Amino acid sequence: MEQKNQPLVTIVMGSTSDEEKVLPAIKYLQELEVPFEVRVASAHRTPHLVEEIVLEAQTTRVFIAAAGMAAALPGCIAALTRKPVIGLPLSSKYYLEDSILAMLQMPPGVPVLTVGVDAAKNAAVAACQILAISDHELDAKLTKQSAAMANKVVDTDAVIREKYS
Amino acid sequence: MEQKNQPLVTIVMGSTSDEEKVLPAIKYLQELEVPFEVRVASAHRTPHLVEEIVLEAQTTRVFIAAAGMAAALPGCIAALTRKPVIGLPLSSKYYLEDSILAMLQMPPGVPVLTVGVDAAKNAAVAACQILAISDHELDAKLTKQSAAMANKVVDTDAVIREKYS
Amino acid sequence: MEQKNQPLVTIVMGSTSDEEKVLPAIKYLQELEVPFEVRVASAHRTPHLVEEIVLEAQTTRVFIAAAGMAAALPGCIAALTRKPVIGLPLSSKYYLEDSILAMLQMPPGVPVLTVGVDAAKNAAVAACQILAISDHELDAKLTKQSAAMANKVVDTDAVIREKYS
Amino acid sequence: MEQKNQPLVTIVMGSTSDEEKVLPAIKYLQELEVPFEVRVASAHRTPHLVEEIVLEAQTTRVFIAAAGMAAALPGCIAALTRKPVIGLPLSSKYYLEDSILAMLQMPPGVPVLTVGVDAAKNAAVAACQILAISDHELDAKLTKQSAAMANKVVDTDAVIREKYS
Amino acid sequence: MEQKNQPLVTIVMGSTSDEEKVLPAIKYLQELEVPFEVRVASAHRTPHLVEEIVLEAQTTRVFIAAAGMAAALPGCIAALTRKPVIGLPLSSKYYLEDSILAMLQMPPGVPVLTVGVDAAKNAAVAACQILAISDHELDAKLTKQSAAMANKVVDTDAVIREKYS
Amino acid sequence: MEQKNQPLVTIVMGSTSDEEKVLPAIKYLQELEVPFEVRVASAHRTPHLVEEIVLEAQTTRVFIAAAGMAAALPGCIAALTRKPVIGLPLSSKYYLEDSILAMLQMPPGVPVLTVGVDAAKNAAVAACQILAISDHELDAKLTKQSAAMANKVVDTDAVIREKYS
Amino acid sequence: MEQKNQPLVTIVMGSTSDEEKVLPAIKYLQELEVPFEVRVASAHRTPHLVEEIVLEAQTTRVFIAAAGMAAALPGCIAALTRKPVIGLPLSSKYYLEDSILAMLQMPPGVPVLTVGVDAAKNAAVAACQILAISDHELDAKLTKQSAAMANKVVDTDAVIREKYS
Amino acid sequence: MEQKNQPLVTIVMGSTSDEEKVLPAIKYLQELEVPFEVRVASAHRTPHLVEEIVLEAQTTRVFIAAAGMAAALPGCIAALTRKPVIGLPLSSKYYLEDSILAMLQMPPGVPVLTVGVDAAKNAAVAACQILAISDHELDAKLTKQSAAMANKVVDTDAVIREKYS
Repeated sequence: MEQKNQPLVTIVMGSTSDEEKVLPAIKYLQELEVPFEVRVASAHRTPHLVEEIVLEAQTTRVFIAAAGMAAALPGCIAALTRKPVIGLPLSSKYYLEDSILAMLQMPPGVPVLTVGVDAAKNAAVAACQILAISDHELDAKLTKQSAAMANKVVDTDAVIREKYS
Repeated sequence: MEQKNQPLVTIVMGSTSDEEKVLPAIKYLQELEVPFEVRVASAHRTPHLVEEIVLEAQTTRVFIAAAGMAAALPGCIAALTRKPVIGLPLSSKYYLEDSILAMLQMPPGVPVLTVGVDAAKNAAVAACQILAISDHELDAKLTKQSAAMANKVVDTDAVIREKYS
Repeated sequence: MEQKNQPLVTIVMGSTSDEEKVLPAIKYLQELEVPFEVRVASAHRTPHLVEEIVLEAQTTRVFIAAAGMAAALPGCIAALTRKPVIGLPLSSKYYLEDSILAMLQMPPGVPVLTVGVDAAKNAAVAACQILAISDHELDAKLTKQSAAMANKVVDTDAVIREKYS
Repeated sequence: MEQKNQPLVTIVMGSTSDEEKVLPAIKYLQELEVPFEVRVASAHRTPHLVEEIVLEAQTTRVFIAAAGMAAALPGCIAALTRKPVIGLPLSSKYYLEDSILAMLQMPPGVPVLTVGVDAAKNAAVAACQILAISDHELDAKLTKQSAAMANKVVDTDAVIREKYS
Repeated sequence: MEQKNQPLVTIVMGSTSDEEKVLPAIKYLQELEVPFEVRVASAHRTPHLVEEIVLEAQTTRVFIAAAGMAAALPGCIAALTRKPVIGLPLSSKYYLEDSILAMLQMPPGVPVLTVGVDAAKNAAVAACQILAISDHELDAKLTKQSAAMANKVVDTDAVIREKYS
Repeated sequence: MEQKNQPLVTIVMGSTSDEEKVLPAIKYLQELEVPFEVRVASAHRTPHLVEEIVLEAQTTRVFIAAAGMAAALPGCIAALTRKPVIGLPLSSKYYLEDSILAMLQMPPGVPVLTVGVDAAKNAAVAACQILAISDHELDAKLTKQSAAMANKVVDTDAVIREKYS
Repeated sequence: MEQKNQPLVTIVMGSTSDEEKVLPAIKYLQELEVPFEVRVASAHRTPHLVEEIVLEAQTTRVFIAAAGMAAALPGCIAALTRKPVIGLPLSSKYYLEDSILAMLQMPPGVPVLTVGVDAAKNAAVAACQILAISDHELDAKLTKQSAAMANKVVDTDAVIREKYS
Repeated sequence: MEQKNQPLVTIVMGSTSDEEKVLPAIKYLQELEVPFEVRVASAHRTPHLVEEIVLEAQTTRVFIAAAGMAAALPGCIAALTRKPVIGLPLSSKYYLEDSILAMLQMPPGVPVLTVGVDAAKNAAVAACQILAISDHELDAKLTKQSAAMANKVVDTDAVIREKYS
């Protein structure tokens, strides 16, 4: 199947223990039928595997890199590619800010585009927005999703408004 | 001139007092010859102008929204468009974290892609990386810039190494 | 019933998942028989619904806006009305400060009057204090509540004092 | 003069060293011709003076209490009145958060309506919004101010847009 | 019994919900047979009860004031007495720092002697150290407690050392 | 002179660079004619000097220990004496909280009574309050100081009130 | 057995309640067959036992000192030896940063080499890296461990890649 | 000269702008006559140069890696060597904690031994302590330095004690 062979998005996570937190990104890409691949590599345990993954990701247009604690992974990928890198900071038991700051505060010239803590879905939405710039079909899907999301709020408003009136 | 009429990037800042901090983004886009426009609108003082700007930005493919303090601007733009929005948190006299958190912690479905505090150049680099996905010429410029940046470090290493040996 | 038709307080929450945290405000207003309405709108998902709610709230004198994370809702309402807006920051799983800072640090001219984290009752008490300026009956109710609250502490003091003497 | 004898707003600051930071509130009230008084009292050095000020403020409808560090003043005033109390946290050399948290995190039943750090103008704007609920003339002035503020942004947008196009 | 009538330490807590956290202080004073009393008063709900408690505490030489959140109680007591006031910051669901900063950052001339978060035992130990300056019997008890505490560590060291050798 | 030979307060600072920040404590003790001594010792550079100072301080009733950064000094003194130890956290270029937390969060049984950052005067006031428990003359001086401090605020209130009326 | 008599690493913890958190360090040293000893001493309860332990540790080349809260233990050991001291900050119920800052921010000349919060294994790995400088056999073990750790990630990558392709 | 050809310590900094902050480490190593080299490499701009430096550092026994902001450099070096890596977090204009957390919170198996912010001298002292394990001459120098440091405090104590007695 073509999707499998030609991923447009490469999701890299630092360890399999991050899989559950990354899942909403995977599901969103599946739902919008965007071809992707998922890889596991640790910037600190397997620096060469990180490089290998970047080199192999020939068709990839956007990276999503998820990591917690001293979250070097997104920055290390950004150091090796000119493609946009979306950083997904993961919460750990201590210090929520460590993962945010470790990917947000990059030096000039090597940005990591950071989303909220554990905001895997938003990482995927942003990846789709980037791809949708040159993909009208995907753009239409995003618009549809947005409308559905808004309609749900509008419906809820009607229910709650009635409930307390 | 075509560049002026068909901006690919729209930079929005919350106030003219932010102009100096946003300048590195402007200069970078000029240097790479990416057509862009610069707008001023406050999410809290001129919500309708924000909407007008988004509606007018027909050719724009990426927004860069710069704001400080309770930095609602990037999120308000993200609420009105399906295009990728890069959030540039600006430092203010107090509370550096207010501007970061106000744009990073967006609800599912409406991401803001946040760069570091006052990291205007990185906002522009990321915008170019996004555009370069479908623009080989721009991609080549980015690669050239990266190589130049790396070479500068390599040269410096030689100098410092010699100095202390 | 008149109360339903002519709300003096409009409570807006960002999502129905905030309902439980907002409940103490609803109960307090019910207890003091202050007419109010409850609406649901997201600054980031339904910006136009927020505007609609503000426009419809013709009789409202005070807004209470509850939101968590990048809590743009109170500020977005403050941008659309000259009525006082009480911001109620809600806790989320991460980053308690995000919701506080996102509503506290507003630009000059557009204040949000912020109460403590999850302090829904205090948001309602403050709304009543504002309404009581021109409503002697409500003022009397507030005074009565204060006295009851103080008496409860005085009674407790007697019990504890005795217990450990 | 009537204004002097019948203040509607009482501004209390913890020390004269706070005068400069409170000045934007004073100027705003003067500009909108809202009668007010300014008092100095320290919750920790002169607790009885605080009580005296609250008792004397018979015509006052809103208190603005400015304090830094372990900023007990707004809470101590809120403990003695049923009128709305706006807390204005002032920055000090260390720990910006001390003054915010000391007034934001009040117990249920005794709210302090907190504005941003050193946001004296916003404290005054909020006081006027509260008074304007039952003062159409003041309401009209606020609307005019808002429009002027918005127009200034719109003008700026035109200038900056032109400058970089 | 004399002890009950002539307390040397007055423990004041902001609410009975703090009783459990204050208990280690009560137990320590009982163990060292230091006469004390326990009172409940809220700086924000019953400011006059706070004053009454201070006035009634004629024989008291040290106050221990326990409070959480915007912990004004220790400062309000310090404002009303020249006796040493030990501040015991209590944890609450959010913002551990609010209670610390609200009592630590007092203005010059009105100190609160702060111990660690929920460190009720240490508040009592410190009160005893202060009383022991002019009470040799109490001083001897403290020395005995210290030695016992140290011996316990020494015994533990022997056990652990053996276990892993 | 007796004062020199029989100090009641021992001030210990970690380095002479702290002298200026400690000076308000020295001046206050001089003003109230409380005999004291000043020592310099570093918990990390001269642990044995710290012990020597504690052993030599036979007449001392209260220690004031001033230190910055990883401020171990107050805790190390508290480990060696049963006398009350007042911790004075000093600001350094980075991390104001390091010195606070390093002395506040002591283990059960070994309290350090902490005052605010750089609050040298308050450390001295607290030391005097502790001594005044058994020294009526000193108690009278403290009461006089308090009254003077309060009167100054009352005078200021009159001036400011007049100025803006 | 020689290992027991001639420890190369001395692990000191502040209390037996830390034992479980320190266990990964103990297990790692056992696994790599590095002779070590485990001691318990509190800088604040048993300062002389700390000194005794340092004096007795004649064969020790590296200290690992584990402590929480106002974590003075590593610094106190560093004050008494010229051997490298690895500080292991332990989490406690409140304030994760207290233990980090209390050991990280040491004065010039007396370093504590700090690892992450509760990162007992990393403390042991670092101790082994230090010993391996002059122990080729240990160096070989470390290299083997590293390779195993990397291989595990590579295997995981293959599994996850397949799972989502 | 041998020193130049066979460095025992490799100092790597992220950019020449860090040179001044790293200088105290350089001077300390020169003073103790420990052969070292200084290199410049950026984890994010020149990842391959980082690898090259590690590979070339055949005689090096300890790395000192200095970096600010999203300080990935020490972790990236630790990922490529089994030698001990001392992380030196550098302050930047914003967010002191970013550089600390980015090197402290490493994953199990890959430690970075972190010293205080801008604590370059302590990084060098720790490197010397590590080398001194197997170098008696260096150990003697360290002991001498420690004694000199302690004597300076003792002298200062005498001066200050006299001054205020």
